[in-house]
Amino acid sequence: MDTTNRQYRLAARPVGLPKPSDFDLAEAAVGEPGDGEVLVRVLYASMDPAMRGWMSDRPSYIPPVAIGEVMRALGIGEVVASNFDGIEPGDHVVGMLGIQDYAVAPGAAVTKVDSSIAPLPVFIGTLGMPGMTAYFGLLDIGRPQEGETVVVSGAAGAVGSIVGQIARLKGCRVVGIAGGAEKCAYLVDELGFDAAIDYKSEDVAAALAERCPDGIDIYFDNVGGEILDAALVRLARGARVIICGAISQYNATSEVKGPSNYLSLLVNSATMTGFVVSNYYSRYAEGAVEMAGWLTSGKLISREDIVSGIENFPAALLRLFSGENNGKQVLQIASD
Amino acid sequence: MDTTNRQYRLAARPVGLPKPSDFDLAEAAVGEPGDGEVLVRVLYASMDPAMRGWMSDRPSYIPPVAIGEVMRALGIGEVVASNFDGIEPGDHVVGMLGIQDYAVAPGAAVTKVDSSIAPLPVFIGTLGMPGMTAYFGLLDIGRPQEGETVVVSGAAGAVGSIVGQIARLKGCRVVGIAGGAEKCAYLVDELGFDAAIDYKSEDVAAALAERCPDGIDIYFDNVGGEILDAALVRLARGARVIICGAISQYNATSEVKGPSNYLSLLVNSATMTGFVVSNYYSRYAEGAVEMAGWLTSGKLISREDIVSGIENFPAALLRLFSGENNGKQVLQIASD
Repeated sequence: MDTTNRQYRLAARPVGLPKPSDFDLAEAAVGEPGDGEVLVRVLYASMDPAMRGWMSDRPSYIPPVAIGEVMRALGIGEVVASNFDGIEPGDHVVGMLGIQDYAVAPGAAVTKVDSSIAPLPVFIGTLGMPGMTAYFGLLDIGRPQEGETVVVSGAAGAVGSIVGQIARLKGCRVVGIAGGAEKCAYLVDELGFDAAIDYKSEDVAAALAERCPDGIDIYFDNVGGEILDAALVRLARGARVIICGAISQYNATSEVKGPSNYLSLLVNSATMTGFVVSNYYSRYAEGAVEMAGWLTSGKLISREDIVSGIENFPAALLRLFSGENNGKQVLQIASD
Repeated sequence: MDTTNRQYRLAARPVGLPKPSDFDLAEAAVGEPGDGEVLVRVLYASMDPAMRGWMSDRPSYIPPVAIGEVMRALGIGEVVASNFDGIEPGDHVVGMLGIQDYAVAPGAAVTKVDSSIAPLPVFIGTLGMPGMTAYFGLLDIGRPQEGETVVVSGAAGAVGSIVGQIARLKGCRVVGIAGGAEKCAYLVDELGFDAAIDYKSEDVAAALAERCPDGIDIYFDNVGGEILDAALVRLARGARVIICGAISQYNATSEVKGPSNYLSLLVNSATMTGFVVSNYYSRYAEGAVEMAGWLTSGKLISREDIVSGIENFPAALLRLFSGENNGKQVLQIASD
């Protein structure tokens, strides 16, 4: 075991898109786990759009990362030492491990996973926060019914790709919005979406009108901005809009673009609901069991986009905002 | 009975605020009721913000008024002749009678009312569409719980004043947003609101922060625009936003202002739901019975602002958009 712990710390609150200079790559001593704590060697860190919000000093569902603090990130690692009953060295655990080589965490704040079920990165993707976001957001808030039309934006991403596949499993017609011909082909050819819309080359409003002739029953939004507005225009009566994210707006330096077409909610008696997966912690097991079953039976496809090396953290994070990632963006910090 | 029927017909689709020249005051012969129809002498017409939408050729929950057609309006009148079983001359009926002296309508499309319960204008206000909007919008979509904080905009209007009073009856803390010191005093002193905010003289965002220290559990929106945005910032966790109207935006000639702060729905796991009372026709009786009980026992106060003379239709309508109306705006077309 190394005795130094490389850590990415937040150096400045980003203005607009985060820059490498907003972070410091520093070294610290590897921590000692206290009573009830565990020491974890971090193997993979999850790159999530929500991290942009955690860097901002604005009221939100969790406090921001403080300047000088290790950048918060979900991760999976191997336990090196444990003072917590039920977790042993060699176990794999998932938790808010941060962008660093070694994390000390309360044993109660991490979750042991059975790494025989799936490759380790899947536990921070499809079987982790993004997968649970897709599962509970779609099923609990969207309440899909067989034959309904479901549209999802950010459809090739960690959340969107799972939303679309679950909607298909529930008998819905699924249209995914993604950037680029390659991602769109992937949605239809590999993931079984009924149709895709390439927002980089198509007029999204016109494409939605054409590909959703009966309107949209469920719109699962990961992007906000113009695409949200285009979807609102096409809502069916009684539609459910799930606001899961707004990646197009997270780096905005001017006012966030509000949905000008929100009065479509009124004329269609539709609902727009904000979704944060942290309200569903107590039901993770329920979601994980069903999702693991779908994964092992091949009904659900999980794709990860892995960048290696802690020094590539800023670049890996920025791939989310440029849309370069193909599937769940993961940063590999050490070999498993 | 006169043999001529004065009618306000839509002459042009308004751009921005409606102008008198957007309407024609024409004369026609009084119609003859056919099989199953009734002839009604119109006494009072309801002036509703929704009428602005009906003048626009945009997809909505009902088709627009055609150019040359009598302007659509809810009204109450006295039956002059009837070919419909169960409705007799002398009965009072409510329905879409339009801005005219005499209306011919299918008997099945009007509702007979018991005019001994309340003054006639109340049947197109608190016991009519605006009252039912308040009742079902607040109770069904808002689901108020005792002790919660309810904020309503357009609080001195036909819908808002009833929303606030019902919320008080349900044990909520109620804050009304209205324009001008007189209306604000009315809300607190006459209607029993806990507090009021004068959007014409106060910073609404600051006033909401001060008067809703625990956040807003239910926001009932009649106005849209900047006030909706200010309310979104103050949502409590699990808040319900009811989009009932957007009077600040109905005459917009540029793009509607979308709520920039809609991501507050996400961080607060809140819901924004569009409400159209026409979905509740089948439950009107339920609402009307309870509301009539509250009215007769003095628990609910209904105020009407009556302008007399069909020739004053454009002026009466415009009072809604200038906010000059004190309570439900009604146009009296004939004496009862």
